[in-house]
Amino acid sequence: MSEELLELEEARSILLQAAPTGGTEARLLSDAMGCVIAEEVVADRPIPPYDRAAMDGYAVRAADIAAASGVSPVAVTCAGEVLPGRPWPDVLRPGTCVAIMTGAPVPRGADAVVEVEATQTGQWTTYGEVHFSAPVQPGRNISPCGEDAEAGQLLLEPGAELSPQVCGLLALCGHTTVTVYRRPRVALLSTGNEIVPPDVLPSPYQVRDANRAIIMAVLAQYGFAPTLDLGIVRDDTGDIRAALERGLKCDVLLTSGGVSRGTTDLLPQVLESLGVSCLFNGVATKPGKPLWAGIAPGGCMVLALPGNPLAVLVHMYEMAVPLLRRMSGHSVPVLPLLSATLTEGISVKGGRLTLQPACVEGGGEEGFRATPLPSHGSADLVGMARANGYIFLRPEKKTWAAGERVEVRAW
Amino acid sequence: MSEELLELEEARSILLQAAPTGGTEARLLSDAMGCVIAEEVVADRPIPPYDRAAMDGYAVRAADIAAASGVSPVAVTCAGEVLPGRPWPDVLRPGTCVAIMTGAPVPRGADAVVEVEATQTGQWTTYGEVHFSAPVQPGRNISPCGEDAEAGQLLLEPGAELSPQVCGLLALCGHTTVTVYRRPRVALLSTGNEIVPPDVLPSPYQVRDANRAIIMAVLAQYGFAPTLDLGIVRDDTGDIRAALERGLKCDVLLTSGGVSRGTTDLLPQVLESLGVSCLFNGVATKPGKPLWAGIAPGGCMVLALPGNPLAVLVHMYEMAVPLLRRMSGHSVPVLPLLSATLTEGISVKGGRLTLQPACVEGGGEEGFRATPLPSHGSADLVGMARANGYIFLRPEKKTWAAGERVEVRAW
Repeated sequence: MSEELLELEEARSILLQAAPTGGTEARLLSDAMGCVIAEEVVADRPIPPYDRAAMDGYAVRAADIAAASGVSPVAVTCAGEVLPGRPWPDVLRPGTCVAIMTGAPVPRGADAVVEVEATQTGQWTTYGEVHFSAPVQPGRNISPCGEDAEAGQLLLEPGAELSPQVCGLLALCGHTTVTVYRRPRVALLSTGNEIVPPDVLPSPYQVRDANRAIIMAVLAQYGFAPTLDLGIVRDDTGDIRAALERGLKCDVLLTSGGVSRGTTDLLPQVLESLGVSCLFNGVATKPGKPLWAGIAPGGCMVLALPGNPLAVLVHMYEMAVPLLRRMSGHSVPVLPLLSATLTEGISVKGGRLTLQPACVEGGGEEGFRATPLPSHGSADLVGMARANGYIFLRPEKKTWAAGERVEVRAW
Repeated sequence: MSEELLELEEARSILLQAAPTGGTEARLLSDAMGCVIAEEVVADRPIPPYDRAAMDGYAVRAADIAAASGVSPVAVTCAGEVLPGRPWPDVLRPGTCVAIMTGAPVPRGADAVVEVEATQTGQWTTYGEVHFSAPVQPGRNISPCGEDAEAGQLLLEPGAELSPQVCGLLALCGHTTVTVYRRPRVALLSTGNEIVPPDVLPSPYQVRDANRAIIMAVLAQYGFAPTLDLGIVRDDTGDIRAALERGLKCDVLLTSGGVSRGTTDLLPQVLESLGVSCLFNGVATKPGKPLWAGIAPGGCMVLALPGNPLAVLVHMYEMAVPLLRRMSGHSVPVLPLLSATLTEGISVKGGRLTLQPACVEGGGEEGFRATPLPSHGSADLVGMARANGYIFLRPEKKTWAAGERVEVRAW
């Protein structure tokens, strides 16, 4: 392993460029939030589908009340009421108006809607006379048929992300399912002689597996889920090989442990013996230097994470989530960093990008504040419990003062 | 309805203060991400549970190599190898060392671990002599038993949020389930004579229901899900009453439509006839002025959203999500706003807080940029499709210039 480590961004670029594009699948709209659309979505009818009242009020002929003023209001006969879903059967005759509710079709002949609040009494009359004390611009409070989109208009192209309002637009166009880029199938594997599952009572020199819990939690945050949990294997070439062979049938294989320089760090050699090509081995981050990435002949992307929990956490955010997002069709797979003000000074050894656990607070006009949290190192889950982010301390510097702006990843 | 509208923040405070605290429930750790812990979590054993090697290297007695230098390295006999999970059976005798892998128990008698890279050859030897070319500080690269937490130490208190690393810590302590504040059961209802489900072919004056799709998508973004979907009811007092009676058995009832001033806006009066106390009726936002909130005798919180999709969207983020988070035990239920630079100037009518759909990009050192998106109004889902946020345009001003800082909600 060369000591010429790749920078985080460089390693990530290599990883993302190697990632194959997935196929597509139909998903229920109610389960597609955050997915990326893989079809063209066209309006099946105009939007809105008819001249639609945008306010509760009276549909009028603007010409009828052109002379209205506060001093001499114009009285118009109210011929009835138009409710949503039920069109007015006739053309609105001159000298008449109809009460109309938001969303209802504007009668033919009417060319404006006057809000009920803008009539002289401000109260509803559905029969009798309505007094208007001001003229109205033709078109006011009417959303004309096809204003937002014509029938047949292309509304969404492949690559659009399913945000809440895109889900709404799809429903409006009659979709209950939508074709999206398939989310990758993810296999998980923990390695280590000393590791036991959380529900097993460890012997004095064993520790329970925290890494799969961390990995699953980060996956869940971004709408992903493991499809194959391979559990824990010992640091044994045969056991590791058998587990990896199963995992490589998925689209992404995430492992933890076994990628450092120790005699029990067998992952890279077993992966390579299975034909997985190394994309990089090691990145210049602290924590998280031992990170091995590769691509299997069948296209499975392998991210062999270190064994220490904080290292797992940062590479889930910096590497795994961008990889999964890229493979799910996201055009901007890397999640943006926030900018925050340091509440206290901090010094680090430097040399590598330090990802310092922090408590990130605030936001809005005053901006975010980041407070570095003390930690005993990259295995210290207790010290990290209060963190909700980490600070990027770039290798160009070793000391930052309180009040300096830093970039943070927060969750 | 008085025209003295509450400001958004004021209305939200009233809503959150009225929200009852939910009960608690046990959840699988793998399904608890984002929930709030409702129990005390205690370390069942020291963390780490033994003196743990923090690096791959050689466990030594520091005194043995105190005189080592590059010019006169000190040779120490390597007595073997300690792997994770298997303790060294003896006390390390003076003049000897053992190869040790990260995570393995440090032998009794050893008081430091020298990284393999720091030995003279930089290569592994598990038997024979190892040459050390520098002294080592006692304690180096050893995480002592109990350094992070003593057995019995309180690690997490009720109120802590389940972040990925807290999930890891729980797993480390043997949890496969965790007691959390119960997530509220949410009922959904759409209202409107003209509204049909997305899978029904609408007649010319009907429109498909977009609002439930929007509501479900925002719920999914924050880990919530509807437990009761009441579908769509017509603007009919009896039908609405029957649906509301069912919905009020949940913890939260979210409706859309029927809360404005029209003759078909029946929700407030039917809700009040069912004993639901009004918390507020209307907020000073554009869109989203018609918003009715109340609390039922049984404790169900009712948020009667307007019928226009953009109004639904903003009140899901500004009101519903904070309400659900508060009821789920979050101490800071309101989601923070980001700060962004306007890429172009914008003018609004003013008078109320305007929530302007926008495309939010950038982040990190350069900060976020917000571009207002043109829209035909609060029913225009087509214009909103490209948005991934909205800008807060406060009522104190009517015009903002390109380059001004504004607050944004982004998703």
